[in-house]
Amino acid sequence: MILSALLTSVGINLGLCFLFFTLYSILRKLPGNITVYAPRLVAEGKLHQEDHFNLAQLLPTSSWVKKAWEASEDELISKSGLDAFIFMRIFIFSLRVFSIGGIVGIFILLPINYMGSQLSDDSDFQNKSLESFSISNVDNGSNRLWIHFCAAYVFTGIVCYLLYYEYGYISSKRIACFFSSEPLPHQFTILVRSIPVPPGSTCNETVEQFFKEYHPSTYLSHSVIRRSSKLQSLINDAEKLYKKLATIKDKIETSQRQWCDGCLGLFGHKVDRLDLYERRLQDIEDDLRMEQSSLSGKEVPAAFVSFNSRFGAAIALNIQEGINPTEWITERAPEPHDVHWPFFTETFIKRWIGKLVAIVVCVALTILFLIPVAIVQGLANLEQLELWFPFLKSILTMAVVSQVITGYLPSLILHLFLSAVPPVMIMLSSLQGYISWSRIQKSACSKVLWFTIWNIFFANVLSGSAFYRVNVFLEPKQIPTILAEAVPAQASFFIAYVVTGWTNVASELFQLLRFICNLKGRICSGNRDDDFEAPSFPYHSEIPGILFFVLLGITYFFLAPLILPFLLVYFCLGYIVYRNQLLNVYVPKYDTGGEFWAKVHNCTIFSLMLMHIIAIGIFGLKKLPLASGFILPLPFLTLLFNDYCRKRFFPLFHGFPAECLVKRDRQDQNEGHMSEFYDKLTRAYDDPAMMPKNYTGGRNNSPTSPLLQPCPDV
Amino acid sequence: MILSALLTSVGINLGLCFLFFTLYSILRKLPGNITVYAPRLVAEGKLHQEDHFNLAQLLPTSSWVKKAWEASEDELISKSGLDAFIFMRIFIFSLRVFSIGGIVGIFILLPINYMGSQLSDDSDFQNKSLESFSISNVDNGSNRLWIHFCAAYVFTGIVCYLLYYEYGYISSKRIACFFSSEPLPHQFTILVRSIPVPPGSTCNETVEQFFKEYHPSTYLSHSVIRRSSKLQSLINDAEKLYKKLATIKDKIETSQRQWCDGCLGLFGHKVDRLDLYERRLQDIEDDLRMEQSSLSGKEVPAAFVSFNSRFGAAIALNIQEGINPTEWITERAPEPHDVHWPFFTETFIKRWIGKLVAIVVCVALTILFLIPVAIVQGLANLEQLELWFPFLKSILTMAVVSQVITGYLPSLILHLFLSAVPPVMIMLSSLQGYISWSRIQKSACSKVLWFTIWNIFFANVLSGSAFYRVNVFLEPKQIPTILAEAVPAQASFFIAYVVTGWTNVASELFQLLRFICNLKGRICSGNRDDDFEAPSFPYHSEIPGILFFVLLGITYFFLAPLILPFLLVYFCLGYIVYRNQLLNVYVPKYDTGGEFWAKVHNCTIFSLMLMHIIAIGIFGLKKLPLASGFILPLPFLTLLFNDYCRKRFFPLFHGFPAECLVKRDRQDQNEGHMSEFYDKLTRAYDDPAMMPKNYTGGRNNSPTSPLLQPCPDV
Repeated sequence: MILSALLTSVGINLGLCFLFFTLYSILRKLPGNITVYAPRLVAEGKLHQEDHFNLAQLLPTSSWVKKAWEASEDELISKSGLDAFIFMRIFIFSLRVFSIGGIVGIFILLPINYMGSQLSDDSDFQNKSLESFSISNVDNGSNRLWIHFCAAYVFTGIVCYLLYYEYGYISSKRIACFFSSEPLPHQFTILVRSIPVPPGSTCNETVEQFFKEYHPSTYLSHSVIRRSSKLQSLINDAEKLYKKLATIKDKIETSQRQWCDGCLGLFGHKVDRLDLYERRLQDIEDDLRMEQSSLSGKEVPAAFVSFNSRFGAAIALNIQEGINPTEWITERAPEPHDVHWPFFTETFIKRWIGKLVAIVVCVALTILFLIPVAIVQGLANLEQLELWFPFLKSILTMAVVSQVITGYLPSLILHLFLSAVPPVMIMLSSLQGYISWSRIQKSACSKVLWFTIWNIFFANVLSGSAFYRVNVFLEPKQIPTILAEAVPAQASFFIAYVVTGWTNVASELFQLLRFICNLKGRICSGNRDDDFEAPSFPYHSEIPGILFFVLLGITYFFLAPLILPFLLVYFCLGYIVYRNQLLNVYVPKYDTGGEFWAKVHNCTIFSLMLMHIIAIGIFGLKKLPLASGFILPLPFLTLLFNDYCRKRFFPLFHGFPAECLVKRDRQDQNEGHMSEFYDKLTRAYDDPAMMPKNYTGGRNNSPTSPLLQPCPDV
Repeated sequence: MILSALLTSVGINLGLCFLFFTLYSILRKLPGNITVYAPRLVAEGKLHQEDHFNLAQLLPTSSWVKKAWEASEDELISKSGLDAFIFMRIFIFSLRVFSIGGIVGIFILLPINYMGSQLSDDSDFQNKSLESFSISNVDNGSNRLWIHFCAAYVFTGIVCYLLYYEYGYISSKRIACFFSSEPLPHQFTILVRSIPVPPGSTCNETVEQFFKEYHPSTYLSHSVIRRSSKLQSLINDAEKLYKKLATIKDKIETSQRQWCDGCLGLFGHKVDRLDLYERRLQDIEDDLRMEQSSLSGKEVPAAFVSFNSRFGAAIALNIQEGINPTEWITERAPEPHDVHWPFFTETFIKRWIGKLVAIVVCVALTILFLIPVAIVQGLANLEQLELWFPFLKSILTMAVVSQVITGYLPSLILHLFLSAVPPVMIMLSSLQGYISWSRIQKSACSKVLWFTIWNIFFANVLSGSAFYRVNVFLEPKQIPTILAEAVPAQASFFIAYVVTGWTNVASELFQLLRFICNLKGRICSGNRDDDFEAPSFPYHSEIPGILFFVLLGITYFFLAPLILPFLLVYFCLGYIVYRNQLLNVYVPKYDTGGEFWAKVHNCTIFSLMLMHIIAIGIFGLKKLPLASGFILPLPFLTLLFNDYCRKRFFPLFHGFPAECLVKRDRQDQNEGHMSEFYDKLTRAYDDPAMMPKNYTGGRNNSPTSPLLQPCPDV
């Protein structure tokens, strides 16, 4: 890619960003868009739909930037939870790392690269290949490479220091949050799977007997889990019908309520829609009651068991319960409204198989995904494209078209294909039999991350450099050399990829899809957003995307430092936009307590190791074997650092220590309104689907009460 | 190696075995040898030295075989502990595996191999190379290889089934032992390291405060650990002197007590030895008291903390205690008389560094050990030897010499060099800062095992086959082919190695070294074994040796089944001999509760995987790529099986489940003599070195009382 193609891409993306930002600044103030741009505030009742409109609203303003900037960290935590805080810390961490890296890269490494003459690219500045700015341009055996060598050491040191600092800071916040939290049901509860129910007994009795026997002083209550997915879908149907009914009752006049009961509502007898819906609702309710009564027997050998203290729950969680380790398997309970299990597996062996199946499908998907990657790489190679489609030759030779195709299109296509991955991974993770939406999302996050790294980084790098060799990983000795040849060659592609990331951030702000849906809803059905639902933040798709940029920044830091300013812009934009979105748009549905940070840490360590491996190869290729040898200790030191961090911080994210638990329990006892809480606790994990429902009668269970709210769909 | 060389080796070893067995059968009945051949029974007071001698004792008898055979498993467990039981289960498991393997190998695979014509070895039977009996002799591409293919699958299935059965059987025994055991101090106690002592406070206070605060209902007492190695050596000196003094007082007349106080006791003034020793003892005692009083302040930030129930101890053990996971690190306490720490490290970071150092030294040792391996391989290649030492040519051409040198000498040298490894590994493991002798031994066991596998198996295999390439492990794709070429070629060497194992077992029975020491002691110093100490079983050197034979058997099962009968003889001999030794010779000093079995399991799985990898290579080399491909699922299935076993059984060996702990605690409470036990418990972990000692005064702390006994030296 030449410089001008990159500039084209920058131009297109800058234009799009500017457009989105301007549109956002205007549209967010217009009446009717409030459920698109501040649904959270509406849901919390802090903002109301206003109908008046004045011309001043059409002027773009940037007050939202100031508001997003000014919110403090504690405000963010209290409003959006620890997960949102962790998410923003990724941006802060990246900004710190790449500011320092950027200064070193742009002011020290870039000039050295440019001064080299290895590539002997004599074209004028505009047509210069981007490779002139990369390490490939430094002369072989040049002593200047020792500066790159030092930069690798210094940069690794800085990243490790910042990682250590962040891990420590985040764990202290986690502990602080724990101390300041109200007593929450999931802190007192564990999930028990694989309960061995003896013949002639019920799961209910078995659980009660077991915990009364072995945890007599701490056991409080339990709720056996029941397979209620059919019931759940009936309830969903009923609720939809009920809402329709309410709308009809309120707003539509009797004349409009007539409806034909035949095909498409056009033929057949005329009936009153109100009557029709009410009859249907009645039917569903009957089904519901029947299903509920039959379900009471359909127990799954798994239960939520609650204890009278956090420490009591932690004891039961940490000690192996039964003699057979594959029975009475305990894990932390999710928050009650986070419980969601399309494919909950209650036995050890089923879960194990589910995990294996998920791994196999993941591998298959990874291989299938090579097809779009190959297409993208075809676009980046114009000659290839001309060979495939000779009739396009005349168009492709036009300068603008070729610049758009090589500069912008490939990364756009990749971004689009990638957006299909998170839902698939969510489905795969839910197959693994997790009990809660948050754990499904956490597991999907890892899957999406490694999928991205493998399919975007490695597949592009290895296919782009002419020889597409997956089996390079069977010859570990060759890896550094092959990566050192291939990775710098793809620098320009990844710079363009980062630039496309800008538009992604801007479109996150603009929320195109939700905007269009909202517009369509208002114009067509005239509905006034009474039944809108504020979205929750898709950590599983956002975190991997950002971590992939971190990986790009770290690996290309000393290969092609030109990428760093573009990355810095991305992280600055992201910092403001995501802060705004977390405060105004997304409602936190659950909180993992910062468990996502372990993934950030691991990914950063992986990126550092990748950088070291490439450095070993590069110095070898550049005929500086001494530097290549001296880099060798660096990956080992990084691994040692990682091992230390794992031991120093990781246990804190897995549970809470006795010190915290006991202190917090005492606080509760001293405050002394625990008996009310215990009352709530014993009912917290009852399946909402099993509660009596009454839509047609007078009493209506409000569908927004968190305990009764249907679980979010995948 | 040709058949006759193997027969020479078999002859020599059979001769030695016969000699040792005969000598044992005679000598064990002779007076004076009782402390060599039944020290355990003497120590337990079941046998006494007898002085009468009659001629019938000189007739070799085999009554000991019957006795060893007849002892039941429960008897073995009650007499020698679960570790001895596990040790004998290795023999039973191996006998089962190789009986089935032997039938398949000798009656199906061996004839097929011999019928092949690949090697076209036309020499007569006696001079036939052993390779004619190995898979190398089967014709390339022959369909008979499918029988080998099936054998690999069937054998893997059988081994896995037996592994599963053994793991289950052993864990049930472990639980049964736990239920039938008396309350033992180490079941109620944990070791806490890295105690953060605040300035101005002592470790003693900190521990008490912490556990009273966070485990108020279960905490009983604690003993802070003190660095007492100097004290310990003073006590050892004092005890030696005290014994000498006692001997002098009892047995030597006053005239003999005169001694010159100058050089070598020959020059200078004459003094009474009794006086001299008494004065020295007095000096040491003074030193002791001073050291004891100064030590009371020298606390190490680590302590044994005891609880009033097993469940209480398990709670404290399993839950992270402090906010900083590198502080208040808990681990199970060893038995009180097992406590032994030449290099105890109390902080997390020191221990981490100790581990790293141990790994580095281990790697260095492994590389250094290649020198004796190279010598051994030189011996196996006579031509090489003639080249190095031309003057030996005339001797080396003699048939007997060459057969001894190629058949017997290499394995003897290896066995000798290997015997130096366990003490070194014990030293390395103790550097890692374990608190107890049993854990040092367990860690050394793993080290010795992998050292043996690497240095005896891989180094021999790869150097013997002309190309010595450690870096094969950097090209994983090549591994199967290289191993498939190299491993069958070394079959004869390993058959000879197994045969040398017979002599090892026989010499274990004969106890040559102890016999000579005993003889020397009785002849020279006339001492009558009053102060002999019964040895404890060296699991760390014996288990790896046996597991290495298991590895050889599994890998060579379908390559060169000729090895199996020799292995079966080895395991039969070992079963009887080690049973006899465990019952009569070795005193169990501690019990890990069968934790060694995990190593046996892992090593067997590793051996299976190695067999599969070699099979993939062999079928490739033999031009049967289809079979090579169909073997591929086998290692994956084995890994899955291993993963399942890890989850199903491993947790049981790491601790006991709540179910067992609570039941056992209730039993104790019902039996109701716990208050005495608690009294004992609070004092159980006091450092014996810190107790008041009085050698010169009237009261003497018996040195054989277990609590006061000096810890066994490494």
